[in-house]
Amino acid sequence: MKRMKAKIAYDGSGFAGYQVQPDSRTVQQELMKVLKTIHKGEIVQVVASGRTDAKVHATGQVIHFDTPLSIPDSGWLKALNVLLPEDIRVAEIHEAPEGFHARYHAAGKTYRYKWDRSQVISPFTRNYMVHIKQRPDLVKMQQAAEAFIGTHDFSSFCAVNTGVVDKVRTVRRLEFEEHGEELHMVIEGSGFLYNMVRIIAGTLMEVGLGRKNVSEVADIIAAKERGAAGKTAAAHGLYLENVEYDC
Amino acid sequence: MKRMKAKIAYDGSGFAGYQVQPDSRTVQQELMKVLKTIHKGEIVQVVASGRTDAKVHATGQVIHFDTPLSIPDSGWLKALNVLLPEDIRVAEIHEAPEGFHARYHAAGKTYRYKWDRSQVISPFTRNYMVHIKQRPDLVKMQQAAEAFIGTHDFSSFCAVNTGVVDKVRTVRRLEFEEHGEELHMVIEGSGFLYNMVRIIAGTLMEVGLGRKNVSEVADIIAAKERGAAGKTAAAHGLYLENVEYDC
Repeated sequence: MKRMKAKIAYDGSGFAGYQVQPDSRTVQQELMKVLKTIHKGEIVQVVASGRTDAKVHATGQVIHFDTPLSIPDSGWLKALNVLLPEDIRVAEIHEAPEGFHARYHAAGKTYRYKWDRSQVISPFTRNYMVHIKQRPDLVKMQQAAEAFIGTHDFSSFCAVNTGVVDKVRTVRRLEFEEHGEELHMVIEGSGFLYNMVRIIAGTLMEVGLGRKNVSEVADIIAAKERGAAGKTAAAHGLYLENVEYDC
Repeated sequence: MKRMKAKIAYDGSGFAGYQVQPDSRTVQQELMKVLKTIHKGEIVQVVASGRTDAKVHATGQVIHFDTPLSIPDSGWLKALNVLLPEDIRVAEIHEAPEGFHARYHAAGKTYRYKWDRSQVISPFTRNYMVHIKQRPDLVKMQQAAEAFIGTHDFSSFCAVNTGVVDKVRTVRRLEFEEHGEELHMVIEGSGFLYNMVRIIAGTLMEVGLGRKNVSEVADIIAAKERGAAGKTAAAHGLYLENVEYDC
């Protein structure tokens, strides 16, 4: 038995999220369907670094699965990309290091959130960026972002009723990038609570649009209460970009 | 009665082309539906610079329509973009110059054809670029492109049975652009025959992949026969980028 580690990308537009659920098209279901075909009807479990929600995209999700088959890496890459639907692509696949686990060994993740500041949003990006009509104040957003860096209890930035008890997480990097009319927020951390990136994005955009002050952000973190933060930014602006592993 | 001229963009993925046809979703149909709503049930004809096929995109299609309504340009822009589906956007709209006609007065058009040379195509570009696995020889493609410049009978580059008699057209510019792994062909001319841009793209790519020689291209043009040229490149790589008017 070999464990395979793969980096995958998917366009979240056509999926009810990553994780299998009844009567919905999901990324995990499509992966398992193809692996079942390759394994002649045997069910193969697929483990990802974590779930992503409906309409959330991935450019660097990581998965693992176990297989008794002896197929070279290039053969796996070709077979999976031929059999998978076009909105999921396998970018890389290799035999995993001994004991590797895509979820348990994830040491950090990077997400990217994309806004489009164009006057009229392009029909080509409507599922891939969130349109902001008013011009946000990027300097204020950058100042406010500093409050997130470090280790904090992120209860204010977690969807309610998640069942997660420990809400302390470490944000290592939170930066903005401008690409023409596109504005990206790039956030890297040890791990993220449910909806955490989208609530941070929504809150920082409220600062950018003058609906919240820069100085409020530290208080919002200290409140440890979801109601203190801004709205959850829309799912289709979010990308899981990278998962780090020590091994 | 005022004549309005608008520049529109659309994602061709969800359309059976520009022109109205029974039981199919088309760009013209969506435009007319919205204009009928704005005109309280009155049918408003929409005239475009020309048709585009199923899955072909536009970033700069031009249309005109007549209206008795007195709405400022900014009001038209807002109303149309609120009512239109998200895969059609109006980028600009103004009152047209006296006697303007979107089709008859089109003095030139620019099309762009996009290929993706990445090892694995991104799930985000599958409807917007055509994946080329083998590395094409761009220098050869550029050399071959020179034969198209000028005024020629383009019968070899026209889908059969179009009913068009005069197949002489002028190509003013044919250039390639590299944007990372993307390869674009930009072609500008007086007008284009049915499938002409896609057959030129397909033929030049065959040169790039070594399936045709650079020197063959002049002979293909001279043959004045569709069978002489290469395959018609796929529709979803094509963009109508600009329509020029003298007035």
